[in-house]
Amino acid sequence: MITLKDLNQNVLRAQYAVRGPIVERAQKLEAEGRKIIYCNIGNPQALKQKPLTYLRQLLALVEYPALMDDPRTMAHFPADVVQRARDILKRHPHGTGAYTQSCGIPFVRKAVADSIAARDGIPANWERVILTDGASGGVKLAVVSLLKGPSDGIMIPTPQYPLYSAEIALRGGTRIDYDLDEENEWQLSESALTDSITRARREGTNPVAIVVINPGNPTGAVLSYDNIRMVVGFAKRHGLTVLADEVYQENVYSAGRRFFSFAKVMHDLGEKDVTLISYHSVSKGFLGECGHRGGYMEFRNIPDDVMAEMAKLQSIALCSNVPGQLATYVMVAPPQPGDASYASYVAERDGVIAQLKTKAELLDKGINAIEGMSLAMPQGAMYGFVRFELPPESDVDVAAMTAEQRRDREAQRNSDYCLALLEETGICVVPGSGFGQRPGTFHFRTTFLPPMDEIAALVANLKTFHESYTGRQPSARAPLTAGAA
Amino acid sequence: MITLKDLNQNVLRAQYAVRGPIVERAQKLEAEGRKIIYCNIGNPQALKQKPLTYLRQLLALVEYPALMDDPRTMAHFPADVVQRARDILKRHPHGTGAYTQSCGIPFVRKAVADSIAARDGIPANWERVILTDGASGGVKLAVVSLLKGPSDGIMIPTPQYPLYSAEIALRGGTRIDYDLDEENEWQLSESALTDSITRARREGTNPVAIVVINPGNPTGAVLSYDNIRMVVGFAKRHGLTVLADEVYQENVYSAGRRFFSFAKVMHDLGEKDVTLISYHSVSKGFLGECGHRGGYMEFRNIPDDVMAEMAKLQSIALCSNVPGQLATYVMVAPPQPGDASYASYVAERDGVIAQLKTKAELLDKGINAIEGMSLAMPQGAMYGFVRFELPPESDVDVAAMTAEQRRDREAQRNSDYCLALLEETGICVVPGSGFGQRPGTFHFRTTFLPPMDEIAALVANLKTFHESYTGRQPSARAPLTAGAA
Repeated sequence: MITLKDLNQNVLRAQYAVRGPIVERAQKLEAEGRKIIYCNIGNPQALKQKPLTYLRQLLALVEYPALMDDPRTMAHFPADVVQRARDILKRHPHGTGAYTQSCGIPFVRKAVADSIAARDGIPANWERVILTDGASGGVKLAVVSLLKGPSDGIMIPTPQYPLYSAEIALRGGTRIDYDLDEENEWQLSESALTDSITRARREGTNPVAIVVINPGNPTGAVLSYDNIRMVVGFAKRHGLTVLADEVYQENVYSAGRRFFSFAKVMHDLGEKDVTLISYHSVSKGFLGECGHRGGYMEFRNIPDDVMAEMAKLQSIALCSNVPGQLATYVMVAPPQPGDASYASYVAERDGVIAQLKTKAELLDKGINAIEGMSLAMPQGAMYGFVRFELPPESDVDVAAMTAEQRRDREAQRNSDYCLALLEETGICVVPGSGFGQRPGTFHFRTTFLPPMDEIAALVANLKTFHESYTGRQPSARAPLTAGAA
Repeated sequence: MITLKDLNQNVLRAQYAVRGPIVERAQKLEAEGRKIIYCNIGNPQALKQKPLTYLRQLLALVEYPALMDDPRTMAHFPADVVQRARDILKRHPHGTGAYTQSCGIPFVRKAVADSIAARDGIPANWERVILTDGASGGVKLAVVSLLKGPSDGIMIPTPQYPLYSAEIALRGGTRIDYDLDEENEWQLSESALTDSITRARREGTNPVAIVVINPGNPTGAVLSYDNIRMVVGFAKRHGLTVLADEVYQENVYSAGRRFFSFAKVMHDLGEKDVTLISYHSVSKGFLGECGHRGGYMEFRNIPDDVMAEMAKLQSIALCSNVPGQLATYVMVAPPQPGDASYASYVAERDGVIAQLKTKAELLDKGINAIEGMSLAMPQGAMYGFVRFELPPESDVDVAAMTAEQRRDREAQRNSDYCLALLEETGICVVPGSGFGQRPGTFHFRTTFLPPMDEIAALVANLKTFHESYTGRQPSARAPLTAGAA
């Protein structure tokens, strides 16, 4: 029988904190009847965000086209949705039931390219687009392609989304951590990038790519135009491929902040040499269609023969799922003014974004009012990366520890805190150590996706718990459901 | 800018003939207006197989539950489908829009385990089931887990489905080919297995697993109970994990042949030591829902800690797509006698299987009537692995070639033949060299999925082409559309 030592040891090394032991414990508690608030994962519809009607109507019609042959059912659907479904089935008669071409349905890939061109005012080539199962599918494809061996390294931010560290570990490459600047709203800093790559080279690592997440996960930062330009210059000087995770591009809340794509900045710079792979997904934005696993990756500055290898890799699993491809189609080609569904689509879309903005502000205000906790207001995405203080440990001689022992000790304390938070309040968050954090700091990532009243309760319960946990206030741990709002 | 030499060289090595250069050429010809018969891939709904009404009705309702609030639309749907949709949404309120647990929706996993228990009369544990994006997703997971380094090898049949060779190459492991016995209806032979593993060990390879595809792809063979028992004994003696690809388990046509699962045979033997991973998918059988990318993998004789690593790996991409999970649910828990949809479901199911059986027989009869072509009647699956003769090359000194040169030369001739077949008739098949074949033999894999009248035309055109190509008949290459039936 197979044992752990028979496994690829890179599998053991790969860690994915967003679904780690704390979440397992939460599921166990929930099975026992506890109310759990899942703030560990950006899963909007699990937290009562409603799907967009237009998309779901369209999917229902394409899944089951006989609805369009029955006048009783047809009376239910707006004319533009029916027209769209008919159009899809005319151009793609196999509907949802057949494998598509490996890189996806051509007209969906064309619509993706058109939407990039319209968003950024730049040319875009549909043959450089691959439709993927969520953005994750595309990230896996890029990481496995770029790592030639164990000494090849990919630069990833601290803190980062652990898909990247997990995939790098799984493929046996080296992660090269670079610090985001917490004091400067989590922007990238050129000196931190330089420090990081210099150290990596000294240690014998060959840097091949840099991951940038914008808007940031877990940080909620929205990168400035200048910051992106700096990164492009850095990548060019060091011959790095840029992996731009832009899945939160629709989730920008702060006045004065705006999303700029790497594609646009590179085009503005006339940059023809830096290879760019950027990602988008139907899981985030205002769709929040995580369960449909739709997304795309777009390539720039990539030779035809390399692109052919990417398409070949995608072909090995045949194609991404077709409902996910169609959700991507709606994301990039939504109803237009004049369409019967346009007004309700816009109202639903704007409602989701407005709610998220309000909840980001609520979280920001609430957290920053807690003594010993702080948060840079999330400018975008769906998360707050909350910093909190823990009193020094009186019974541990920290000074006598190695850096690694200190890091492990801090990770343990960070994790213990989050586990106690779960046990006592039912709030499920992810320890900062799962994303990476600077030594001596403690964080957790929480989404601000729960319904409005639960956000208020969340903040109130966090306050009570934190005061209690840090010993300043010994008892009074109210369950989350007791109306703390 | 990135170049081919910057890529992981295992990416370049991975080949996937089912979507290789011949298919690309076919797509180009199609774009130019040629009629192409895609026999290269088991993609039933692309070849006009109708989806099962029950499944599509259910998916429409779960995608867009508002249909159930409107009496006009409700009049359209059978009561049991509505009840099933309501039940799904009650047990899984997030519907299709949220990530599920990493291994899939628990009640779907339970239904999978129940269906295995019912099929085989054996116990099955739902916590040993992972829902995957098609079977491919599960195969990738197993291959990356089992290969510890370049000298680890996985035994795969010759001929095989190239997903296996591609994944082994991509993960940097070694493929260990074993011959299927073409003269014995493509069953496995113990002596061929022993030859293969002995040779591998002598060459320094460490065999860790064996892949068995039953019913066979591309061979169409259905393995006997005894043959499976022999493989289990072989795996036990050599400490191999068994990867049992059983995605065609519903596709058995030959009287006197019956599908036996590895799980059942191992249970009958009281085997507690051989680790088994078996696969099923919604893409094949009578569903043919390739585009939904649904499937599962079931593990037996696996310790909890290893299972936890498999679940962790699955969590890195979050979960498989939810419509695919629901399609899997319908596959394993179809309508029951007494349900409103039962009769029509059974009629559709049996109609698909009966059609496939008739088409397998048509192909068998037609091919074996062509001089220089032969086919073991497909007992199952969706393919014929057709053997054909080519005249010896008068201008090439085969005797002077190395074995490798001969293999390459034969692969080239095999491929040239299939390309010419495509160019002259529009029939798109995959060269036998893409699956593996014994030296000195030529094959192609064709599906028998096209509609009945096209199968007849296919056979007629194959005959004309083959005669012409091999020089016995110099001209008269009729296009496929000219009614050869």
